[in-house]
Amino acid sequence: MANPVLPSSGVLSPLGLDAVRLAPGFWGDRIALNRDVTIAHCQEWEEREGWIGNFRGRLPRKGREFSDSEIYKLLEAMAWADHPALPELAETVARAQEGDGYLNTRWTGNRYTDFEWGHELYCYGHLIQAGVARLRMHGEDRLTEVAKRAADHICRRFMDTSETCGHPVVEMALVELYRATGTARYLEMARRFVERRGLPALGEIPFGRAYFQDDLPVRRAQSLRGHAVRALYLASGVVDVAVETGDEELLKAVEAQWERAVARRTHLTGGMGSRHTDESFGEDYELPPDRAYSETCAGIASIMLAHRLLLATGDARYADVAERTLYNVLATAVALDGRSFFYANPLRVRVPAVPLNGVNHAAEGGLRSPWFDVSCCPNNIARTLASLPAYMATSDAGGVQIHHFTPGEISHGPLALRVETGYPWTGGVRVRVLSGGSGRISLRVPAWAKGATLAYGPAGDTESAAGGSDISHMSGSREVEPGYAVVAGDWQPGDEIHLDLPMAPRWTFPDRRVDALRGSVAVERGPLVYCAESVADEPPLADVAARISSPPIDHEPGPQADHLVDHPADHQVGSPAGASAAVPVPRAAGSEAGAPDPVAGAPAADPTADPATGPAAGPAVDPVVEIEVAVLLGTPATDNWPYRPVPDAPEGVDTVLRLVPYHRWGNRGPATMRVWLPVAD
Amino acid sequence: MANPVLPSSGVLSPLGLDAVRLAPGFWGDRIALNRDVTIAHCQEWEEREGWIGNFRGRLPRKGREFSDSEIYKLLEAMAWADHPALPELAETVARAQEGDGYLNTRWTGNRYTDFEWGHELYCYGHLIQAGVARLRMHGEDRLTEVAKRAADHICRRFMDTSETCGHPVVEMALVELYRATGTARYLEMARRFVERRGLPALGEIPFGRAYFQDDLPVRRAQSLRGHAVRALYLASGVVDVAVETGDEELLKAVEAQWERAVARRTHLTGGMGSRHTDESFGEDYELPPDRAYSETCAGIASIMLAHRLLLATGDARYADVAERTLYNVLATAVALDGRSFFYANPLRVRVPAVPLNGVNHAAEGGLRSPWFDVSCCPNNIARTLASLPAYMATSDAGGVQIHHFTPGEISHGPLALRVETGYPWTGGVRVRVLSGGSGRISLRVPAWAKGATLAYGPAGDTESAAGGSDISHMSGSREVEPGYAVVAGDWQPGDEIHLDLPMAPRWTFPDRRVDALRGSVAVERGPLVYCAESVADEPPLADVAARISSPPIDHEPGPQADHLVDHPADHQVGSPAGASAAVPVPRAAGSEAGAPDPVAGAPAADPTADPATGPAAGPAVDPVVEIEVAVLLGTPATDNWPYRPVPDAPEGVDTVLRLVPYHRWGNRGPATMRVWLPVAD
Repeated sequence: MANPVLPSSGVLSPLGLDAVRLAPGFWGDRIALNRDVTIAHCQEWEEREGWIGNFRGRLPRKGREFSDSEIYKLLEAMAWADHPALPELAETVARAQEGDGYLNTRWTGNRYTDFEWGHELYCYGHLIQAGVARLRMHGEDRLTEVAKRAADHICRRFMDTSETCGHPVVEMALVELYRATGTARYLEMARRFVERRGLPALGEIPFGRAYFQDDLPVRRAQSLRGHAVRALYLASGVVDVAVETGDEELLKAVEAQWERAVARRTHLTGGMGSRHTDESFGEDYELPPDRAYSETCAGIASIMLAHRLLLATGDARYADVAERTLYNVLATAVALDGRSFFYANPLRVRVPAVPLNGVNHAAEGGLRSPWFDVSCCPNNIARTLASLPAYMATSDAGGVQIHHFTPGEISHGPLALRVETGYPWTGGVRVRVLSGGSGRISLRVPAWAKGATLAYGPAGDTESAAGGSDISHMSGSREVEPGYAVVAGDWQPGDEIHLDLPMAPRWTFPDRRVDALRGSVAVERGPLVYCAESVADEPPLADVAARISSPPIDHEPGPQADHLVDHPADHQVGSPAGASAAVPVPRAAGSEAGAPDPVAGAPAADPTADPATGPAAGPAVDPVVEIEVAVLLGTPATDNWPYRPVPDAPEGVDTVLRLVPYHRWGNRGPATMRVWLPVAD
Repeated sequence: MANPVLPSSGVLSPLGLDAVRLAPGFWGDRIALNRDVTIAHCQEWEEREGWIGNFRGRLPRKGREFSDSEIYKLLEAMAWADHPALPELAETVARAQEGDGYLNTRWTGNRYTDFEWGHELYCYGHLIQAGVARLRMHGEDRLTEVAKRAADHICRRFMDTSETCGHPVVEMALVELYRATGTARYLEMARRFVERRGLPALGEIPFGRAYFQDDLPVRRAQSLRGHAVRALYLASGVVDVAVETGDEELLKAVEAQWERAVARRTHLTGGMGSRHTDESFGEDYELPPDRAYSETCAGIASIMLAHRLLLATGDARYADVAERTLYNVLATAVALDGRSFFYANPLRVRVPAVPLNGVNHAAEGGLRSPWFDVSCCPNNIARTLASLPAYMATSDAGGVQIHHFTPGEISHGPLALRVETGYPWTGGVRVRVLSGGSGRISLRVPAWAKGATLAYGPAGDTESAAGGSDISHMSGSREVEPGYAVVAGDWQPGDEIHLDLPMAPRWTFPDRRVDALRGSVAVERGPLVYCAESVADEPPLADVAARISSPPIDHEPGPQADHLVDHPADHQVGSPAGASAAVPVPRAAGSEAGAPDPVAGAPAADPTADPATGPAAGPAVDPVVEIEVAVLLGTPATDNWPYRPVPDAPEGVDTVLRLVPYHRWGNRGPATMRVWLPVAD
C-alpha cells in the first residue's frame, strides 16, 4: 500500500508503488532519471545553499523562511525512491528537533509569531508527508519518528486555538498520517484547521485574505481562488478530511470549486494561475498566455487534487485534467536532463531568456534554471515523479481501472497485467494478462478521444509484432465513448485488450470570453499541447497566423519518440544511459507503416555515439513528433502607434511552421515560443 | 517664467503660469479642485500617516523608505498653487536638514547604504523640484534654501563617485535647479548621473538591472524599459541634460526610445506599463487591457517626457501623446471630487472592487482610494495639476503655439489671446485676440483630427452666440492637416481664429501583434477613449461583442458636459462649489442645436438642489457625453472546459451598449469596465 494518498473510503482505491511498476517509456524514463539525477541534484543544491546546514545550526541561517520544507520534500522524494541518502539526511533533520517536537530552523526561539508568512505549519506538513512516505515504503525509522513527534506537537499546540497557517499543506499531511497510523487526533486536527479557515483565522495582508483562502469558509467558496498552490493544497486537504469524516457537503463544495476553476481559470496545458504578482488564479477567463504563471507546484497540486477527487468519485473528468497536467506541466517543468526546471510555465515567450547557470532569483518561465531562491518546484517535481506510479491505476470491488497509459505492470490480487504502449506518441494501448483472475478491467478513454475503439480476447499472432497490433483474432471490437471502457471477464494469461485512441492532431479554439486568446488557435494531439518554438535564427513568431482551412499535418512518430533526449545539442543526460533504452513503440492501428520522418536539423543517427557519454543508447534523432501547420508569416512592419482606424489585416508570406510538444520546448537553448497562434483565415 | 521645465535652448519655449491662466473648463475646473481640495487632502493624510511627523523626529518612523518624497511633491504642488500652507510645512522639513545638507528621515545615521532601494537621491530630486517651483513662483525662501543646500550636498558627495540612485528623478531636478540658478555644477552632476547609469552603477536585484535602467548605458538602449516611472523620469532628465549640454546624440537616443515605446509599449489611453509585478513596461506588444498597470505616475512622467521632447523638437507627435495621456490617464486618476485616486489604470475590470475608505495597501485599479501605502500618485497628481497651465502653450521667435485646448487666456509679449472651447466635448476652438501684436499663431491639429478646418479674420456677429460660431465673415477658411495649423498675421483686438476638429466617434482597432487585444475594437471621440461601465444591476460586460457594421452613435453633449460631477449619486464635491460653475460650451460648427439628450438613470435637473451641499450649482444632469454602440449581448453559458474543437461563435441578443469617457469611469461606485470590446461581425 505504498501510496501518497490512501483514503479509507471512496469509489476507487489507488494501487501503490508496490502494485504498479513502470517500464521504460514516457513516465518510466522520467522516473528513472528523477531517481538517478534529479534527487541528487536537489540535495547538492540544498547543501550548497546552506539550507541543510541550517539544520546543523550553522549561522547565519541561509535561505527563505520556508527553506526547511525543501529538505522535507526532498526527503519525501527519497522515501518513495528508496534512495540511499535518506537516513543520513533524516538524521540531520532529527537532531534539530526540539524536545517538545517543535522543529523549524527559521523560527526557533521565536515560535509562531507570524502565521501569515511564517510557514511553520507548512513546513511541518511537508515533514509529515515525508514521514508518511517513509512509513509506507520502509516502516518506522528516525524520519517517521520525527514526523509523528511534530504532528503530536501540532495537536497539543493548535487543537484548541483558532490559528492556522498562511500556507496550507498541513491539513492533507495530517489526514495522511492518520490514515497511516490510525491516530484519530491527526484527523481531528486537520478537520479543525479546515473549518477555522476563513472565519477568518489570519490577519489582513496587502494581497487580501483570498490570497491564502482566508476570505471565506471553505464550504462557502464558489471557486478556487488566490494563490494557486495554497488553494490547491488546501482543497486537497479538504477532500481528505471530507472523505475520512464522511462529510458529503464538504466534498461537494470542493467539487464545485474545482469544476468552476477548471471551466474558467485553467490554461490549455492544465496549468493554473494567471498572475505573477501574487502567484494567484486571477479572475474567471483571465488566462493570458504570455503572463500565464502556471507555477509548476500549482500543476503538481492540481494533479494531487484531481487524483483525490478521482478516488472519491470515480469520475473520469478528474483523470482527464490530471493527464493534461501531467503531460503539459509536470513533464514540461523539468529539462530532459533532469537538472533544470521551470518555475512558471507560460504559454507564450516573446523574448528569449538569458541563460543562467546559477540560482534564479526570479520565477519567470523563459528558460529552465538549475535552482531558485524559492526552490519549491524542483523538490516538488522530485517527490511527485518518485511517487508517480501510484497515480496510474486503481481498484474497486469489481476490478482494476487504468487511468494513465504508460508501459509497465500492474498487479491486483491474482490479476497481473502488462501495459504496452507508445503513448502519448501513439494511440495504441495493449493490456496483456500475465496472471489470470476475474473482474472488470477499465481503461480510461480521454475526453478528446472521440472514435476510440476497443478490442479484446485471446492474443492473436501479434506477439512479436510490437510495431502493429493484429486484432483480427479478437472478439468484441467496438467503438468506445470517452469515460471508461469496461471489459468484464474471467481473464486468462495471454488475453489482451487493445485500446486505440485517435491521435490525429486537432485544432483547439478558446471560449469567446477568454479575452487574451480571442482570434487564436492551438494544436493538440492526444494529451499533448503543441507549440511553435523559435531558437536562434529560426523564423520569428511575433507575427505568424495559422491558416485553419488546412488541417495540421502529423508526422509518423519515429521509434525514438519517447526518448528523453531531443537532439545531440541538448543538455546531456547525466545518467543512467539505460533510462533512455528504446522500447518498441506500437503504431496506432490504421496508421501508415514507414520509417521515421527525418526532421530537418536533426541529423541522422550516429552509430558511433558512445552510450556512456552520448545522449542515449541507440539512435538519438527524430525523437520529436512534429506537427506542421500552414501559416502566414507576417512581413516586418513598423508603425508609430499600435492602434488604427481600420482592422489590421494579416499580411505576409505563406509558409509552414513546425510545432513541437509543449513539454519539449526550451531544451535547445533560449527561444521564443507560443502555444496560441492567431487565426489568419 | 513660472515653469516646471524651462530649457535654455530648444525649438519651443514654454509659456508659464504667469502667461497662461485657465478659466473654468475641463482643466480649469480640475486645477481649481486640486488647489482647493486635493492639496489639503494630501496634507491631511500625510499628517495622519505620520509621514510629516517623521520630519519632527517622531519615533518610530512611519511609512515607506521614500515617504519623504511625498511631502516634497506636495510642497511642489503648494508652490505652483501658491498655497498658504507651504511656509509652515517647508519649515518643518527645513528643521530636519542636517548641517551638511543631508536630509532624509529614513536613513539619517545610516546614509547611503542602499543605493538600489534607499531612494535618498530620489527624495532629493523631489525636494529640489519643489525648491525650483518655489523659486520661480515666489523667490528665495526657506524651501529654496533647503533645496539648494541639498543639491550642494549631493554635488560634494557624488560628483566624483560612480554611484547613482535606484530611482531616477534627481537628474531632471538638478538640471532644473541649474536653469533656475545658473549654478553649473548642478548640471554637471546631473550629466554624470546620466552617464554613469548602466555601466552599471547599481547592484544586481531579483527584477534584473533593467528594472532601474542600469542594464545599459542610456545611449545604447533601444526602448524605454523596466519600471515605467523610473524609465520615464530618467528619460526626462536625459533630455534635460542633452538640451543643456547640446548633446544631439543623447537627445536622439531618447527620441528613438520614446518612439519605440509609443509604437509598441503604450496603451490606447497613453498609459504606460503592462506588468504589475515590477510596475514595468513589459515587452513589445505586451499590452493586456485587464492587467494594464498604467500607473498614474507613469502617465504623469510620460507627459513630462513628451513635454520636454516637444520643447526640444517642436514635433506635434509629442503633444499628441501628452494630450492622450492628459485626458485618459491624468484625468482618470483622480475622482470627480478630488479626494480619491487610481494608482493603476487598467483598461478592463472584470470584478467590481470592494469599496475602501482607508489606506489601500495594494495598487490595483478597480476603485479609487483616498490614500495608499505608497502614495506617490495623489501627490504627483497634485503637483502636475498645479503646474498644468505651463504645459498648454509655447512660444518661439515667430509667435505662439497652442498645444492643448481649454478655456483660458494666454499672453506673450504684447499679444494676449483668449481661448474659448468646450473641448474635449466639442470640437470648436475659438481663439480671440484681446491685445494685438504680430506673429504666427499655431494651433495643434491632433493626429486623429482628419478633416479639421480653420478659419480666421475679424470677428463676425457671433460674439454672443457662444453656442455656435458663425464664420461667414471670416477669411481664410480651409482644411488643415494634423500637425500645426499656422496663421501669420498682424493681429488686432477682436480678431479670431476658429479651429473645428471633427468629433464624430470612431472605431479603433489594435495592431495585429498585440495578442491581448486581437479581435477587439475600442471607441474614441476626439482625444477621449471611451469605455463600457457596468454598475450594480446594469448588464454585465463579460460577454458583449460590438457590431462594427453599425457606426457608434454620438449624443450631442449637453451644457454640463464639462462639469466635474456626473450624477447626484456621485461623490460630492467638497469645495468649492464654484469649481463646477457652468461655463457655456460652444457646440461644434455644424452640430445640431438642441437640448441635452437626457440619459436614462440620470434624473432631470433639480432646481431645489442646494449648491452648498448638492453636486454643484446649476443642473446636475446629463454631464456625460455618452456614445452608443450596437452589441451582441451574450447569453450566459457554461461549459466545463474553456477550449473547444470549433471556434466559439458569438451568440446572444442584439442590444445597445452605452459608453462613457474612460476618465469618468468608477465615479458611480464599484463597477466592471472595458475599453476594448470583442468584434461580433
